[in-house]
Amino acid sequence: MISPFQIQHSDSTAADAEPRTKDIVLTGDRPTGALHLGHLAGSLRSRVALQHEHSQTILVADLQALTDNAGQPRHVSAHVLEVVADYLAVGIDPEQTTIALQSGLPALSELTMLYLNLVTVARLERNPTVKTEIELRGFARDIPAGFLCYPVSQAADITGFRATLVPVGDDQLPMIEQSNEIVRRINRLAGKAVLPEARPLLSTVSRLPGADGRKASKSLRNVISLGASSEEIQSFVSAMYTDPAHKRATDPGTVEGNVVFAYLDAFDPRADEVTALKTQYRRGGLGDVTLKRRLVDVLADVIAPIRERRTQFARDEAYLQQVLDEGTARAAGVTCSVLDDVREAFALTRRGQR
Amino acid sequence: MISPFQIQHSDSTAADAEPRTKDIVLTGDRPTGALHLGHLAGSLRSRVALQHEHSQTILVADLQALTDNAGQPRHVSAHVLEVVADYLAVGIDPEQTTIALQSGLPALSELTMLYLNLVTVARLERNPTVKTEIELRGFARDIPAGFLCYPVSQAADITGFRATLVPVGDDQLPMIEQSNEIVRRINRLAGKAVLPEARPLLSTVSRLPGADGRKASKSLRNVISLGASSEEIQSFVSAMYTDPAHKRATDPGTVEGNVVFAYLDAFDPRADEVTALKTQYRRGGLGDVTLKRRLVDVLADVIAPIRERRTQFARDEAYLQQVLDEGTARAAGVTCSVLDDVREAFALTRRGQR
Repeated sequence: MISPFQIQHSDSTAADAEPRTKDIVLTGDRPTGALHLGHLAGSLRSRVALQHEHSQTILVADLQALTDNAGQPRHVSAHVLEVVADYLAVGIDPEQTTIALQSGLPALSELTMLYLNLVTVARLERNPTVKTEIELRGFARDIPAGFLCYPVSQAADITGFRATLVPVGDDQLPMIEQSNEIVRRINRLAGKAVLPEARPLLSTVSRLPGADGRKASKSLRNVISLGASSEEIQSFVSAMYTDPAHKRATDPGTVEGNVVFAYLDAFDPRADEVTALKTQYRRGGLGDVTLKRRLVDVLADVIAPIRERRTQFARDEAYLQQVLDEGTARAAGVTCSVLDDVREAFALTRRGQR
Repeated sequence: MISPFQIQHSDSTAADAEPRTKDIVLTGDRPTGALHLGHLAGSLRSRVALQHEHSQTILVADLQALTDNAGQPRHVSAHVLEVVADYLAVGIDPEQTTIALQSGLPALSELTMLYLNLVTVARLERNPTVKTEIELRGFARDIPAGFLCYPVSQAADITGFRATLVPVGDDQLPMIEQSNEIVRRINRLAGKAVLPEARPLLSTVSRLPGADGRKASKSLRNVISLGASSEEIQSFVSAMYTDPAHKRATDPGTVEGNVVFAYLDAFDPRADEVTALKTQYRRGGLGDVTLKRRLVDVLADVIAPIRERRTQFARDEAYLQQVLDEGTARAAGVTCSVLDDVREAFALTRRGQR
């Protein structure tokens, strides 16, 4: 058995968590592929920090992944343990963080079914996140019903753990609003506060772009996995969009929208040096080649230890499965107790812990 | 403990069941009030007959009732055991028919969540039954998402028991179509026939109108419960719509749309006499008072034994609960095995019988 250990990176997000003694934190990922550097900068490092201060659950959201992958379910199941390996490799400690599989928690489906009665179709269609993602996926009128309903399913996830703090990007704020609306309806039905409202924890790190400057996305092939080899890092950085007007090293260049600087901001531990480099780049006299060489070294330092642990974990599938099974069992206790409270609000009999 | 016994009525529907050795039959009711004579004519008598020949489950559909009663959940839970008492009183035998509570079967919620990924929102909005009921309930744009999704939930009910024969009114045919579409998608995903398609069993009895000639509906107060007293039967029949042009007994009258004849057709065991009465009524010479007196006697004969058994059962709530608990436990075994097959089609691990 491999014991997970701590990633060295400092994290700025945790400081903004307005720690109210101890929060219940919920996050998750759709298991549709290996996690990448964007996940590390945007959420994984923050989770590693949060686990020490709070009670944290990470949901491997395989059911949610099926809402737009129903035609290729094996694409989802094949990536479940890989995502668990990514978690452990970046320093998520299964003793401190509950890692649970969504499809292993029937109470979440039952909660969703009950909540669907409290939300109108019009309300779901107005949800800005759903709107954007419908466009992104080109669903038009052929939206799977499960996809339209996924904010309700996400409310089941959040409330199913009585989460009080949910780390999100600002595009995900409507999801927390929807969840809190349901919480208020349930508490009104129950005549008492059986569920807590959740606060968003907005990431202080802006979303990392893909190498080409577009949105980072596995399907656009502009991201780099946490298990990337030196050669992959090299070619990922080589392909990075910088400033097309910055043709010679002596030309003045633009920092904004320059992908290399975005990655340096996210991962270079020497922030003062990065600031100096930006000044030099703007003024002229700093070539892209030199800059990219620095980024290759920085990313190699970040990825190398993760890649090594990832390889170790990948060799021990039984351990990954055990981590997930134990986390899911622990999570089942919590979600069943929440379901009991919600059932009572709907005048259904409590079932007791199954 | 009261043992249920057989109602005397003959039943014509069973003969049309195209019995293919043994079918798996699923029906159900939303527990929003006591069942009435319309249920007896339209479905209960048929179920009593079907239970001898087939493997039958009746679902007390409390979750489905919540799709348009979420604001008053107690209105649903309060009627669950009453509906069970109605079943037993008309002659449903819990040794032959599994009576199960929908909210006691988590596998049905999980099946619904998985199926929601296979059905588009546009497809649900086109469902004629949903369209009609949306109008009926005056939902307009404020349709609860759970209500829009209820054909999918009904598909989970049907397939959750591997039902092959579903007794329905013709207005419910789109529900079976929707279910069979999902069956075909699942079987394609699974690469084998894990679920059977269901055939509708159309009722041969036309839908009984309410006393006022409008659609029979508890909320319109134009129906009569299976536990009605002699006085209630009397006043129910008195209020019945006949033929406004038929002022004197000697006037010729119209049989079509005449509610008294609709009830005689449904419940008078002497069909030849009813035929003769129709001829006489059309010709002139048969007064509404005489006709209604006959119907009062007919209904009294139908209701009296049911009312008596209903009263007995109502005194033994523990027995009703036991019938429901045992039926639900039996049903859980079936629905969990179906869920396992469907999970496998979605490349999720089988859970085994819980």
